[in-house]
Amino acid sequence: MQRTGVGAESGGFGQRIMELADRLAHWSESSDGLTCTYLSPAHRTVAAQIRDLMREAGLTTEIDTVANVIGRYPAADSAAPALIVASHYDTVRNAGRYDGRLGVLTALILAEHLGRLGRKLPFHLDVIAFSEEEGVRFSSSFLGSSAVAGRFDAKLLERRDAQGVTLAAAMAEAGLDATKIPALARRRDGLVGYLEVHIEQGPVLLEEGLPVGIVSAITGSVRSMVTITGTAGHAGTVPMARRHDAAAAAAELVLYVEKRCAQAPTLVGTVGKLVVPNGAINIIPGRCELTLDVRSGDDATRDAAMSDILSEMERITARRGVTIDSQEVQRTAAVQCSARLQKVLADAVVGAGVKPRHLPSGAGHDAMMFSGLTDVAMLFVRCGNGGVSHSPREIITAEDADVAARVMLDAVLRLAETS
Amino acid sequence: MQRTGVGAESGGFGQRIMELADRLAHWSESSDGLTCTYLSPAHRTVAAQIRDLMREAGLTTEIDTVANVIGRYPAADSAAPALIVASHYDTVRNAGRYDGRLGVLTALILAEHLGRLGRKLPFHLDVIAFSEEEGVRFSSSFLGSSAVAGRFDAKLLERRDAQGVTLAAAMAEAGLDATKIPALARRRDGLVGYLEVHIEQGPVLLEEGLPVGIVSAITGSVRSMVTITGTAGHAGTVPMARRHDAAAAAAELVLYVEKRCAQAPTLVGTVGKLVVPNGAINIIPGRCELTLDVRSGDDATRDAAMSDILSEMERITARRGVTIDSQEVQRTAAVQCSARLQKVLADAVVGAGVKPRHLPSGAGHDAMMFSGLTDVAMLFVRCGNGGVSHSPREIITAEDADVAARVMLDAVLRLAETS
Repeated sequence: MQRTGVGAESGGFGQRIMELADRLAHWSESSDGLTCTYLSPAHRTVAAQIRDLMREAGLTTEIDTVANVIGRYPAADSAAPALIVASHYDTVRNAGRYDGRLGVLTALILAEHLGRLGRKLPFHLDVIAFSEEEGVRFSSSFLGSSAVAGRFDAKLLERRDAQGVTLAAAMAEAGLDATKIPALARRRDGLVGYLEVHIEQGPVLLEEGLPVGIVSAITGSVRSMVTITGTAGHAGTVPMARRHDAAAAAAELVLYVEKRCAQAPTLVGTVGKLVVPNGAINIIPGRCELTLDVRSGDDATRDAAMSDILSEMERITARRGVTIDSQEVQRTAAVQCSARLQKVLADAVVGAGVKPRHLPSGAGHDAMMFSGLTDVAMLFVRCGNGGVSHSPREIITAEDADVAARVMLDAVLRLAETS
Repeated sequence: MQRTGVGAESGGFGQRIMELADRLAHWSESSDGLTCTYLSPAHRTVAAQIRDLMREAGLTTEIDTVANVIGRYPAADSAAPALIVASHYDTVRNAGRYDGRLGVLTALILAEHLGRLGRKLPFHLDVIAFSEEEGVRFSSSFLGSSAVAGRFDAKLLERRDAQGVTLAAAMAEAGLDATKIPALARRRDGLVGYLEVHIEQGPVLLEEGLPVGIVSAITGSVRSMVTITGTAGHAGTVPMARRHDAAAAAAELVLYVEKRCAQAPTLVGTVGKLVVPNGAINIIPGRCELTLDVRSGDDATRDAAMSDILSEMERITARRGVTIDSQEVQRTAAVQCSARLQKVLADAVVGAGVKPRHLPSGAGHDAMMFSGLTDVAMLFVRCGNGGVSHSPREIITAEDADVAARVMLDAVLRLAETS
């Protein structure tokens, strides 16, 4: 058995990951529930905790100038490139304790175990806990990973939080020098690849009875804000045939989005916000506002759906005598995961006695930032409670965390053999 | 020509009604737009203005204990019964200037003209400006007319406005003695009938090119608050087939209400409030709240529609794995207008050279309160701007107001002949 140690502590990895996730969840900026947004006191305490854990695991540690916590398990050759195994430690408001942190802790456990084995790799193993992925405080999603990937957008520094504090001011207050951000960017030839473990945040693995799955692609999304303007009127006095009801037009659009996005396997479409502003029980809606979020693992599939949705808006406009204004507010391209790294993960999954299931990620992840810079791949872990995430009800099992850690250890060793 | 004077001042009635409506619109409790709610300073000033106008018209006047302004053009025989010609002088917020007041002013002009002619009637003509119909301040719709009709609900006295002031306290502060409300009730044998002129608040007369129409029935309504509970989830990670989207379920319901209520001529159904509470662009709606308002001139037609809508809710529940909670919050019966008084109005409409068009009222009116106590009938006046009401854009023409006044004068004289 070349890959000594894999499975030797079967069960122990998962138990330790759960304990550490519980420990990190103690620090929250809200008195009830877990909230840990960029550079809040809770966030800074968690960063220090993760740094301490990395130190105890024998890693060389650093908190960089955007508050990423980086622990390196060094290669024998200091000039070797690095494999990044990472995720984020910030959270949404009233969050679960595994989104992001599961990936950070799995990477930590992995490095700790290799250190205990004394097993040297032909690459540095860089465990990174990114400081900001959720975009809660400054609407600056992927702040931490974008800096390391050399994609940080300097315009974000002027972005303000709800209290009017700029990102630049918040960083300065925390002793972080924003002028040093460009120096964080990794070089292509310094990287072997990027791996990330993350909770699935959906029900697919749960419903298929699988502890882990291999991410095939991270979906790109198009987001739009839609305003439908009809004609308000008295609910009792305007005959049905003479109405131009903005909510009824919205209802048609909602059902069209649902139907159209059911036509391709990786395609999803959501109307998440829907409101008749100042609606009253006895007034025919003159206005209805809604949001549209359409995603697919394949950009062409998504764009075809979006195009059909826009055509349907025109048909609704013509049929109902309303106007529909649709403003695209975000468009991100889908990221394909590396076939090579997917194969390594799939082989490790099979090695753990699990059927290898490839599935797209409908949510964005730090891995996206490294696409184009190095090969990326992700391992999803089964999400309990029907797949709920961004909620205190988000849950995983220690057994599944253990499978994930063993798969990642095996995958890293397989990469070491072939590097 | 028995009915001397009708048409003699052709055009003059309408012009004067428009001028007086403009004058009354000067008093508002908001600095922009017209708002005149029960017992506000603006409301009390308008009551005094109407009383002064009635006095100038030669009527005996009174402001009663609920602030109705009553002007009597007395019959020769003081023991004669009364014909009430009335509407209300309160308004919604940011109102138009004709809703309610058009009826008050037409009645006033009528009595003024009869007085000028010296034409005595076999009944008292009671011009009443009801103090409260819209229910804005205390949710006490029809307060003024319910008191005169002997249907005042004493429980309303404990109802509080947005500042926490009870109706009882507001009345006391205005010097109105609530203990005297029961004495306002008219007796059946003291009444000849009830007539009301009102702006249509809808587009039917406008689209048919008619200045006035005869109301056939005032529709009864059923109102419900509906809450749909589905399963919230991440907009990117939950496949379409596994969703239980509360907004999509609501969309189906909205379109069913629209389709079902188009199946009978006098039936209307409206979803006026519609909202995904705390909706987010990237969250599948777990909850959607909406209101339902279904009306018809015929209660059986309305109830059949409501029953079908409830059945559809059950089908949506079963099909989508959501729950739908529907709470009925109001149910009022339709009021049929008197065939006798409709005929008198129709004859007068024909006499004015206008095609007699009978149409139901989808909105509630003070006339409803007198149904069962005496014969009621209403004359609708064409509403401009597409039929918009409860809006500063509410408009009528002086020409149409003139037709309405001449028709009402003729109708009253026809009633005098047959009484």
